[in-house]
Amino acid sequence: MRIAQLVVGDGVVVAVSDDEPAAPWIDLRSAAEIEYRRSGATSDAARALAAALVPSSSAQFLERGGLARDLALRAIVERPAEATVVEPEFGPAVNPPSFRDFMVFEEHFRFGYEWRGLPVPDVLYELPVSYAGEPRSVIGTKETVPWPSYTDHLDYELELGIVIGRTGRNLHPDEALSHVAGLVLLNDLSARDVQGHEMQGGLGPSKGKHFASSIGPWIRTLDSIPVEGIGMTAYVDDELWCDTRSDRMVWSVAEIVAWASQGETLVPGALLGTGTCNGGSTIEIGRRLESGMTIRFEAEGLGALENTLVVRESGGWLPQPRERAEGRAASLRFLR
Amino acid sequence: MRIAQLVVGDGVVVAVSDDEPAAPWIDLRSAAEIEYRRSGATSDAARALAAALVPSSSAQFLERGGLARDLALRAIVERPAEATVVEPEFGPAVNPPSFRDFMVFEEHFRFGYEWRGLPVPDVLYELPVSYAGEPRSVIGTKETVPWPSYTDHLDYELELGIVIGRTGRNLHPDEALSHVAGLVLLNDLSARDVQGHEMQGGLGPSKGKHFASSIGPWIRTLDSIPVEGIGMTAYVDDELWCDTRSDRMVWSVAEIVAWASQGETLVPGALLGTGTCNGGSTIEIGRRLESGMTIRFEAEGLGALENTLVVRESGGWLPQPRERAEGRAASLRFLR
Repeated sequence: MRIAQLVVGDGVVVAVSDDEPAAPWIDLRSAAEIEYRRSGATSDAARALAAALVPSSSAQFLERGGLARDLALRAIVERPAEATVVEPEFGPAVNPPSFRDFMVFEEHFRFGYEWRGLPVPDVLYELPVSYAGEPRSVIGTKETVPWPSYTDHLDYELELGIVIGRTGRNLHPDEALSHVAGLVLLNDLSARDVQGHEMQGGLGPSKGKHFASSIGPWIRTLDSIPVEGIGMTAYVDDELWCDTRSDRMVWSVAEIVAWASQGETLVPGALLGTGTCNGGSTIEIGRRLESGMTIRFEAEGLGALENTLVVRESGGWLPQPRERAEGRAASLRFLR
Repeated sequence: MRIAQLVVGDGVVVAVSDDEPAAPWIDLRSAAEIEYRRSGATSDAARALAAALVPSSSAQFLERGGLARDLALRAIVERPAEATVVEPEFGPAVNPPSFRDFMVFEEHFRFGYEWRGLPVPDVLYELPVSYAGEPRSVIGTKETVPWPSYTDHLDYELELGIVIGRTGRNLHPDEALSHVAGLVLLNDLSARDVQGHEMQGGLGPSKGKHFASSIGPWIRTLDSIPVEGIGMTAYVDDELWCDTRSDRMVWSVAEIVAWASQGETLVPGALLGTGTCNGGSTIEIGRRLESGMTIRFEAEGLGALENTLVVRESGGWLPQPRERAEGRAASLRFLR
């Protein structure tokens, strides 16, 4: 099954589709309304029931579990013409309540450290390392990417997103995949100059990442897609810049989910990124993005995710360097 | 003004209070209901209006701007007995939509690097560095702190939290404080062992921080508290472990807010931490927390924030080390 959020008029509806690319997209709310009418409800009652009972976001769809899934399965089989969205306009596949991005593709991260002239740290082979992204900055396909005023160097990162389907905490990898709803294409947009600079502080990326990430167009449920070995490509202005595969991962999807759930509760709709696939950034290929360029990601079963970089935001403020208190040692006066 | 979320029965209400410590806490919804009744509404209508119109969270209170603030100011002046909460039970002062934690107290961060045997990086004097916390893990005073199964070493961090009051983007420091609602006490709980380990990967802290942070009991609006120089103390089981002051900051509150807003929209209720005050962690004083201990923070004008560490969570899964692909160089086969 594929799950999407479609822009219809001024609003967003949850829609589902079967696995083959040409299968129609069915608006779940319309499908439910048809069901209620068929069971004898008046048109008004059917509309009111559908508005009240049908999930209005894909995260809510996942939260509702079996009831929503059963409705979706019936809609996919019946394909009611009245509920079919003819020219679907995709929003982000999910508005995630939280977003963690990991780093498990060995060739990518080895490149990253070598690029910065640093040794590859042991910890990357000892646990799945991640940083927290900004879920509020998630955009969908065809949305433009804002270019923050503080950066000269934007990059894309071609990734898989793992969408949580069922609440879980302190999971073992053996059970972790049963908590995953499916996979989604993910572009973890990065401002390389500020990212490299701020990461020297040890707290990881922040302004280098939090301005935007894009996902979509749909979540593909795990029953019809493998968790590894998916062919993935990146095009810039229709030129192929990356042709890779989601394999050679130091940590599996199950291990990523299990580690993310330790001491924290994962909730439906939560997004975990795998980190950049091997070869999935411009720094790895010695190329550079410019404003006006369109990035298009494609992956087997996951559709296409396309975003254009707009011109740099005007205004903005940059911090001015401070003087270091060189002479003063870190105080021990608090020591008891 | 002080703004809090009080636990009343099964629910949470927004309550406000004047600045002096003994001022009563007024439930805003009850105060509004009294106003509506006084203006001639029936009891039922007044209750329905109050339920519909009065904010049900402090973030929503801030979102509503002047209308909510005017209601609060009238309630504080009139102090209607019927709307007074006699024994207030404080929830977290805000459920923040996002949480960034900075690192601006020079003695604290210099200690941190020296403790790990690392030089203090220049970037800390070049821009305010931060990581993204987990807003869903925010708890209030008197709530217990879960002890994740993967850590042997929990620590507190005595901080100020800056609560955004008004939407802003690409702000200059000169205007930044007008976007701040007020300050709150913040305990950025940390699992030092896993934090130190995962930070070697360069992506900053994640499992070392995301399990819990505590804030509360109230937001103090900026009109009645200075942004720097606030006396702050930490007690463990009633023993004084830290007596410090929010000063000697490399970056001001205004600069933190301004930098946080570059390329990202700050929304009402968003939480920005200053990072640990000088002396505000146990590693700085050579002490160690144990399960069962109670941490109490106090700050001038900000009340007390008290949390007890519970026993370690059972179960859980730990990753097993992987083999490093020593012989294989990061591939250049994607290079075009």
